Amino acid sequence: MIYLDNAATSWPKAPGLAAALAEAVETPMGNPGRSSHEAGISADRILFELRETMAELLKVNDSSTIIFNSGATESLNTVLSGFLKPGMKVLTSSMEHNSVMRPLMHLQDQRNLQLRRFPSDSLSGYPDLKQFSKELQDHPDLVVVTAASNVNGVIFPIEEMAHLTRKAGVPLCVDAAQGGGEIPLYPERWGIDFLCFAGHKGLLGPGGTGGFYIKDYQCIDPLIRGGTGSRSKEEEQPETIPDKFESGTPNIPGLAGLLHSLKFLLHSEEIRTEAELKTLKFIEDLRELDGFRLIGRPSGPGFTRVISLLPTLGTLTELTAYLNSKNIAVRSGLQCAPSAHKTLMTFHSGGTLRLSPGLFTTNEELDETILTLKEYIWQIQKN
Amino acid sequence: MIYLDNAATSWPKAPGLAAALAEAVETPMGNPGRSSHEAGISADRILFELRETMAELLKVNDSSTIIFNSGATESLNTVLSGFLKPGMKVLTSSMEHNSVMRPLMHLQDQRNLQLRRFPSDSLSGYPDLKQFSKELQDHPDLVVVTAASNVNGVIFPIEEMAHLTRKAGVPLCVDAAQGGGEIPLYPERWGIDFLCFAGHKGLLGPGGTGGFYIKDYQCIDPLIRGGTGSRSKEEEQPETIPDKFESGTPNIPGLAGLLHSLKFLLHSEEIRTEAELKTLKFIEDLRELDGFRLIGRPSGPGFTRVISLLPTLGTLTELTAYLNSKNIAVRSGLQCAPSAHKTLMTFHSGGTLRLSPGLFTTNEELDETILTLKEYIWQIQKN
Repeated sequence: MIYLDNAATSWPKAPGLAAALAEAVETPMGNPGRSSHEAGISADRILFELRETMAELLKVNDSSTIIFNSGATESLNTVLSGFLKPGMKVLTSSMEHNSVMRPLMHLQDQRNLQLRRFPSDSLSGYPDLKQFSKELQDHPDLVVVTAASNVNGVIFPIEEMAHLTRKAGVPLCVDAAQGGGEIPLYPERWGIDFLCFAGHKGLLGPGGTGGFYIKDYQCIDPLIRGGTGSRSKEEEQPETIPDKFESGTPNIPGLAGLLHSLKFLLHSEEIRTEAELKTLKFIEDLRELDGFRLIGRPSGPGFTRVISLLPTLGTLTELTAYLNSKNIAVRSGLQCAPSAHKTLMTFHSGGTLRLSPGLFTTNEELDETILTLKEYIWQIQKN
Repeated sequence: MIYLDNAATSWPKAPGLAAALAEAVETPMGNPGRSSHEAGISADRILFELRETMAELLKVNDSSTIIFNSGATESLNTVLSGFLKPGMKVLTSSMEHNSVMRPLMHLQDQRNLQLRRFPSDSLSGYPDLKQFSKELQDHPDLVVVTAASNVNGVIFPIEEMAHLTRKAGVPLCVDAAQGGGEIPLYPERWGIDFLCFAGHKGLLGPGGTGGFYIKDYQCIDPLIRGGTGSRSKEEEQPETIPDKFESGTPNIPGLAGLLHSLKFLLHSEEIRTEAELKTLKFIEDLRELDGFRLIGRPSGPGFTRVISLLPTLGTLTELTAYLNSKNIAVRSGLQCAPSAHKTLMTFHSGGTLRLSPGLFTTNEELDETILTLKEYIWQIQKN
């Protein structure tokens, strides 16, 4: 299989991940923070080292500001549900994933939020910073933006946007499900208030892992309460971090796997540069293909390895079925991001074909994909 | 290591679990329900088979009423936060874990709940069914009870309690974090409304897995909203199950592991009978030990393999340190269940020593533990 669906979940994962997961269930591994025996301490060590390693990746000084949970979706729900009080004003982009929009729409309804979206360029999805700055003058209570689009890969200028929100005194929440592990994101240095990340995409870890960075842990309540192994006398949730936001037995094998992946990522510069070059060549090849239109990929902004495409001949469904039959894994449709597709004018056509090569995708696989796309067009033209 | 902390998380896990986890990250495994390619379909198959297998274990007809998420704690928070409206009356037992009590105490405060606890026998922790029935006449809006105590292993008569709540027309939520996979629990047959389970304890799966059975999916809102791969056009959460409660990329390796474990469990009758016999002998040996007092273990009620003990010589801390030094993994203290310890009159002494043998603990390990406990007392007496 040629796997080009890394924006959904990366594959292959970091080399050796399977062994790291296996080891974490083969070794006695207790429940962290709860027992003084060796197995409990092994679990503690994994969590501690993971927090330190993630802090290194994000250049965060105090690793206890990094919370681990089941993923970016839980993180976004925790932050949005925890922070937004009735009647608050929220500003978000028009390029968001449903993991942002669905909680926001629900809270808008339930808590009578005033929700505004600032526009992005319809050709690139790049945020309109003038409009963004203008909206900031209206003093929203929270800004929520994606770090990079899961539809066309456009990278948001988060450092600059964080500068603007800080200047305006508005808290900023960044959805780094896309972009995390791929582009620089330094929440503490840039003054970001919340940065939500997924473990299983650019961070190359297993599904069911992720978390968030939080600048001020006192500003939100947890979404989930329960046993933490700390302050067990009390039926109130502890206020200290990370415990406040980490109730219940964590996903120890998953987090051990994520730790393994992060260590790999910290020394992956060369392979990342190579992947960048391979993707650039792939994009050029796609541009030259007859019968296809690249979506949201003008020169100018930076992009991740997420590429959207539409066939100008035949239908999206036919094209997807053809690629599936050739064992090329892509994702077709709206990719859980209707707002982004509206922005890029691809909503009414039912979305796009998304090709997202990974860190380990080879030139041969990309060439084979180009060839298969050409064959598809020949077939369509022949019939 | 002699691992006697299975009530925290079971170990060893089901044979072959490590390979199941490894396979799930070595095989291209896309994001379920989102892509039509083979990798996405592999993920779909795992989730489908897992749901069917869990339904078989719980004797549930419609497997879509079984939701998977990060564990029992997330499940309890989802049910309690979703169900309880301002001013509602909640009845719970005095033997609950903080995964029930902390969400309840928070909701009591935030939503002005009327929270009542019905008593349990202080010798056994067994619920006082007369008082329970009496409290039901007051028509609480929800009853929340544990299936089995994580402190002394007492098994609650859930079938009988479900009969009583059904007769009173009161919805019932069961916390089966303890007991799940060990005692019969048939929510659909017994008319239980919500049954929350953990994957990593009696079900022998990895941490970060679990979920809940829900009788009527329309009666609660989800706690977490986001991308589901379904109804992607809409910025509202879908109302169909399981999607309504399963947002974001699931823990595919963990759930593949849980599937593996459940298949093992379905054919584990013999090994479970053996474990039962080994535990009974262990209990008898513990009873005969000088210098210790079994807590909450009179004859009468049924118990899981969770055993609480107090030294009558020396301190709990010394005893725990001694066992740790002999590489016997136990859990000492309040085990995140202050209410249960208050019931069993062990709160003020700082809890108990908990010994929880697993399905695979050998007679040799249990004998070695008895010997070590004897040695501890000899040492204390000598000094």
